[in-house]
Formats: sequence, C-alpha cells, structure tokens
Amino acid sequence: MDYPNDQAPGAPVRSGIPEHGRIPKYYAVKARIAALLDELGQDSVIPTERDLAERYDVARETVRQAVRELVLEGRLQRRGRGTVVAGPKLAQPLSLASYTEGVRRQGRTPGRTLVTLDRFPCPEPLAAETGLTRGEPVWHLERVLLADDERVGLESTYVSVERVPGLRGDFDPDSSFYAYLKAQGIDFGDADERIETVLATPREALLIGTPPALPMLLIHRVSRDTEGRPLERVRTLYRGDRFSFTAHLGG
Amino acid sequence: MDYPNDQAPGAPVRSGIPEHGRIPKYYAVKARIAALLDELGQDSVIPTERDLAERYDVARETVRQAVRELVLEGRLQRRGRGTVVAGPKLAQPLSLASYTEGVRRQGRTPGRTLVTLDRFPCPEPLAAETGLTRGEPVWHLERVLLADDERVGLESTYVSVERVPGLRGDFDPDSSFYAYLKAQGIDFGDADERIETVLATPREALLIGTPPALPMLLIHRVSRDTEGRPLERVRTLYRGDRFSFTAHLGG
Repeated sequence: MDYPNDQAPGAPVRSGIPEHGRIPKYYAVKARIAALLDELGQDSVIPTERDLAERYDVARETVRQAVRELVLEGRLQRRGRGTVVAGPKLAQPLSLASYTEGVRRQGRTPGRTLVTLDRFPCPEPLAAETGLTRGEPVWHLERVLLADDERVGLESTYVSVERVPGLRGDFDPDSSFYAYLKAQGIDFGDADERIETVLATPREALLIGTPPALPMLLIHRVSRDTEGRPLERVRTLYRGDRFSFTAHLGG
Repeated sequence: MDYPNDQAPGAPVRSGIPEHGRIPKYYAVKARIAALLDELGQDSVIPTERDLAERYDVARETVRQAVRELVLEGRLQRRGRGTVVAGPKLAQPLSLASYTEGVRRQGRTPGRTLVTLDRFPCPEPLAAETGLTRGEPVWHLERVLLADDERVGLESTYVSVERVPGLRGDFDPDSSFYAYLKAQGIDFGDADERIETVLATPREALLIGTPPALPMLLIHRVSRDTEGRPLERVRTLYRGDRFSFTAHLGG
C-alpha cells in the first residue's frame, strides 16, 4: 500500500517518479495500465499490446516493457494466448505450520508433484547445517508445489533415512510431509528460517513453469524435533509474483 | 547451499540444468564464472567481459548475460569501472529490534540519509491498516538506509504526530528512530510483518543507486505499543542482492 502524498504540495511523489521530474516513458505507461487493472478486476483479459500502444500513443516496445514488469510483479498473468489481471499474492505465514495448512487457510487447494526421491550419504555442508552425521544416509525429496493446480513453487527436503526409513514405500508424495512425520510420532520443536530473493535457474523455471529469471522467494529451513534433535533441511522456492510471507513479532 | 547429488548416478542435477539436458549456453558460462568467484574471493576484481569471452570461447553478449544475473543475485558488484566479487548477503533478523541493531550485530556501521520529513492527514487506507484516526495528522519520514556508507535500502515510516509532536525539531534523521521512541518513553509491544519481492521503481532505484528493476525485498510492518495502541506503519525496501532475513520459529 502506497500513500501518494499529493496532500503535501511540492513534496516528492511517493512512487515511480525521480526527483528531477523526468518520468521514464514506459513507467508512465505502466502506471496507467496499473490503474486500468484496478478497473478491470481479477481474471479480466487486458487489451492487446497493439491496442494499448494505440490507446497511449506509444511504441509497442514501450507497452511490452510495462507489461513485462507488471507480469514479473504478479499484477498480470499470462494465460494461454492472453494476459489477465492476477489476483492478490498468497500471504503464507512464516510458521512451523506446513505449506498445506497455509494454502488451505487461504481457501486454495494445495497439491504437490514428485520430481525426485533419492538417497545419498550426508555431505559435509548438510551435516554442518543440521547436526546430522556426515556420511549417514539421507533422503532427498523434491516436489513441485501447487495451489489450485497452478505450479507455484519447488521444494527440496533433506531428512535422515534413519528417521523415516519407510519413506519411499509408505509416503504419498502428493500429501503433506509434516502430516506424515506426525503420523510417525515425530513432532516439530523449532526451526531457523532464512528468506531471500533469487532468480530462478533454467531448470527451476522449467519445473515451475515460470519465465526464466523471474524473481523468486527462497526459504531455507533447518528444523529440530521437540527434543532438539536434527529433523530436516528444506529449501523452498516460491514464485515471487504469487507469494508473500507474514510474521507476527511478539513483544 | 545446494547439495549437488552427483552421488546418485542418473538422478537429475540439482541446479541449472533442465531434464532434457540442453544447458543454456549463458547458464553454463554463469556456472563457470561462479566457480571462478569462489577461487578469487571477496573484493577481487574479475576479468573483463572480453577476457571472459575469450577464456570460455563464447560471444561477449553471452558473458554479459551471465554477469548481469550474477550482479542481480548479489554474487558480483559493480564498483567504479570494474566488477568485483561481492561479500555474503547481510542476514537481518525479522524481529522488533531496529535496523540499526541488526546491522551492528553483523559488524557493519548503520547510517541513514533523510529524503523527506513531512506531515499530512491520515488517509483511509493507512487508518484501516493501523487503527489511527482518518484525518489525524501523521508524519511521513523517508530515509535511505546505509551500511558502511553503501546505500542498501529505503524506508518510509508513518507515525501519528500526536505521538511524537517534536519529531521535526528534536530527532536526528541519521539516528535510530526506535532509540528516539524509547527516549520518549514509547516501547514496542508487537508487530505484524509481511515480506515480498518487488522491482524497484525508477525513483527508488535512483535513491538507492541500484540498477532499475533490481529485485528488492519489501517489508511492510504495522506495530503497536505495549498497550496495544497503534504505533507506526513502515515500508522498507531492501536491496535483494545485499539482504536476507532470518527468523527463529518456536515450538
């Protein structure tokens, strides 16, 4: 939420316009298209680039740059051949609750598609981060995350084979891993998280179905059980145009 | 931290390479430059585009794309005419502690430059978010955030004039606003935060000195005092190539 301060005459405008007053042309067009989106409402198809270029009397390349940024920011979404007004970003709580719970709480249907499930000896960096023993067998579970059948993220979970020896046989990859752990009698104690923005790699973009180099939110998690023993290391990549994260900070 | 699982023969490689095995040329060059950065170490100047293009036997445009992404990701930094290996991202805790404390804890020197300090009647959206009264006078304090004299962010704070009537006269804009509140006998109770990734606007890029359209981390905060009364609304934009955020999630 911006608060344009045209209430304060002479003050610099809050968004988009450098102090020297020269507004980049594409940015002026972007602001006008953004205003149009508010009028059209979610899921509406926007006019073609040609129509927009005519309407604002600018080159199509100028419209293209404006639209590209609105797509990267999650205001617009490509759908089939058209471009539609996107809904608000999903606001996922930073909490020990699972992806599943967070997405459900927002009235969306969570899903997951298995990319890979394999096991390998715990490498030194993973041992150092988690407290697992170097060389002990660990599972690597990699899944694409879905919300209402839309691919929205990619998650890699590393967990000791000793903890969940039957993972390959009795875990349904399209279900909540946390619910599975709970069913095995394993409860979360605490976790350290780190959140940053990164660009999708070509492989990640392909798996999630995003344009390459779309800004993503990457969340690293190292968690422990209620007795403080190492539990998992998770690396989750969320589409930056579809997700935000919330936290409540106590006193 | 990635864990390349070449331990598991035949499994898909963890980063960068689509399953169908065609590695985009610029991405292969990016991976080789990234490996070179690890050898060179922080603050080293990297070879010129021309040298890199010769070394890897590719077009300069290919090297340029690889370098551009490494800059956007914060692995490289432009400095003067050269490009140097960047240090690790600052890991700022998501907590009620101030920017000042977070940066100091990492051995960096925090600073702030005043962009604007003005007052205006509280608009409806701000009233709805914070619990302030529509129309009551609010301060808007906008500052560029520095770490070791490097511009790293841009912060807008909205606070009721009634709370801190003397702000314009007795607050040093290059000091901690939270320390100032504390000195006025105002203590933080709790806050709601939301974090997302956005592109810098041209004005923001100009103020922070970043390339336009660099992915940024945007943190929204609405805080209350220990009695639950509305305190401030903050919008802080951090360079996505220089910052990450950490949280500890309790059981």
